[in-house]
Amino acid sequence: MMTFTNIRTLREQLKETRFTAATKGKQIKIALVPTMGFLHEGHASLLRKARAENDLVVLSIFVNPIQFGPNEDFERYPRDPEKDLALAEREGVDFVFLPSVEEMYPQPTRTGIKVADLTDVLCGASRPGHFDGVTTVVGKLLHIVQPDRAYFGQKDAQQVAVIAQMVLDLNFDVEIVPCPIVREADGLALSSRNVYLSAEERQAALVLSRSLLAAQAKADTVANVTAGEVLAELRDSIGAEPLAVIDYVEIAEFPGLAPVAGGDRIDVSERRSDVLIAVAVKFGNTRLIDNVILTKKVND
Amino acid sequence: MMTFTNIRTLREQLKETRFTAATKGKQIKIALVPTMGFLHEGHASLLRKARAENDLVVLSIFVNPIQFGPNEDFERYPRDPEKDLALAEREGVDFVFLPSVEEMYPQPTRTGIKVADLTDVLCGASRPGHFDGVTTVVGKLLHIVQPDRAYFGQKDAQQVAVIAQMVLDLNFDVEIVPCPIVREADGLALSSRNVYLSAEERQAALVLSRSLLAAQAKADTVANVTAGEVLAELRDSIGAEPLAVIDYVEIAEFPGLAPVAGGDRIDVSERRSDVLIAVAVKFGNTRLIDNVILTKKVND
Repeated sequence: MMTFTNIRTLREQLKETRFTAATKGKQIKIALVPTMGFLHEGHASLLRKARAENDLVVLSIFVNPIQFGPNEDFERYPRDPEKDLALAEREGVDFVFLPSVEEMYPQPTRTGIKVADLTDVLCGASRPGHFDGVTTVVGKLLHIVQPDRAYFGQKDAQQVAVIAQMVLDLNFDVEIVPCPIVREADGLALSSRNVYLSAEERQAALVLSRSLLAAQAKADTVANVTAGEVLAELRDSIGAEPLAVIDYVEIAEFPGLAPVAGGDRIDVSERRSDVLIAVAVKFGNTRLIDNVILTKKVND
Repeated sequence: MMTFTNIRTLREQLKETRFTAATKGKQIKIALVPTMGFLHEGHASLLRKARAENDLVVLSIFVNPIQFGPNEDFERYPRDPEKDLALAEREGVDFVFLPSVEEMYPQPTRTGIKVADLTDVLCGASRPGHFDGVTTVVGKLLHIVQPDRAYFGQKDAQQVAVIAQMVLDLNFDVEIVPCPIVREADGLALSSRNVYLSAEERQAALVLSRSLLAAQAKADTVANVTAGEVLAELRDSIGAEPLAVIDYVEIAEFPGLAPVAGGDRIDVSERRSDVLIAVAVKFGNTRLIDNVILTKKVND
């Protein structure tokens, strides 16, 4: 495993590796797994999928300042590069890219990539500018690594939708591979931010996965059920947890993110697109997100 | 010479060409010359430079709707693909990319690339949104072709500055090569839009190059001359032409485009950056731009 902090060096090594393989008649596939570090089993699942599907796996670890709002947790976002490198080594990563903020932003960037519409809803509504920071840094990383495939966790379902839209609109030559949410045994979706939770908050946070899975079960089994019915039950269920402060609880088409009207049926026989049920809820100072995706009716 | 209208086909052919060369131990250099067609000797000069410096030359011809304002000349912008292909063939172009609007924008793009600051001044002030359309389409073309170098004419000096900033900020792996303005024997800067001019307007338009070259001579030869003095003479000179309606006449640092204060000396001994003297002037319905760049004092 090689570690890089410098863009130029990483790029040269990637070109050299690609070219050397080509001289031997092999077109290698390069995977990028972009992360903010403090890696957990969710990240490990991305790395394993990337490892299985590609010849060379690049893991980037960069806590990107421009996707944090002024009152968000950029400074205190958890970091543990040593543990991250050990996990990367275990998962068979080839190249780790660990740039400094100065390497990625030698001057404040004057250029931004912005996806409209998809970024105004859900987390975008509570975190103005967040997704512009995400698309801009992902654009930079895609230009630096030029991967054939890039892997993202579905826990950030909106992020997946936004990046897929960016890739489509701007003709990035990369396949975006979304990967399923990984949960603790008790259902809590893995997140680097779970480390912020007190024992009591962590226990309370189980309401998210419990309620979402119940919502999914209802939508999948109850005939003629509407989005409004599923949403009301989900809101009640989360609202009943005293430590939970709801930011949003919503149902939207996926990946288009257009809201689903309360009266619309979302039982499986009526689903014309995938449907995202997504929540953002604060426990103390910690904002957690979670979701389930209902898959659309298979076309006859 | 091969002609492509389809993104996927072009991309596959480029990959195949690059890979085949690599299997033989050669890392080829690919040039992109992005144009809106109706090619003239200015474009030909870009193609010749690209031809001389690279193994494979890609010419793109696409009149990009999203860089035109609602009252601008998108519909009537001159087009002559047959003549363009003949010129491309003559200049030794390898691949011509001639996509339809539907191929480039199968849906209206939700994603934009925007460069701040540099796009608020000069042409950006008179053409709101223009440079966002330019950076977005150039980003798309760079992703489609993945060239090693891309060639742009200095007649659109602000465009060169904006694209260079985008490439720097977003880590595009491409070298931007600016190329000098090509002029008719009488001084008129070549432009596809010159075809709009009546004989009388065309004659009147010579005031631009004449005045700019006089401004450049003054800055290069008069001791202690200030930006304000050069600007005043330039404005008077263009203003004296009855058919000329000034949009702007400005002096700015290049490529940063920060305005130069009227009191600042721009004689050669005081120039700490390159300095752009740029004009946009309407003759009848036709808006022409032209400029000169004063090169900075060589560091001792």
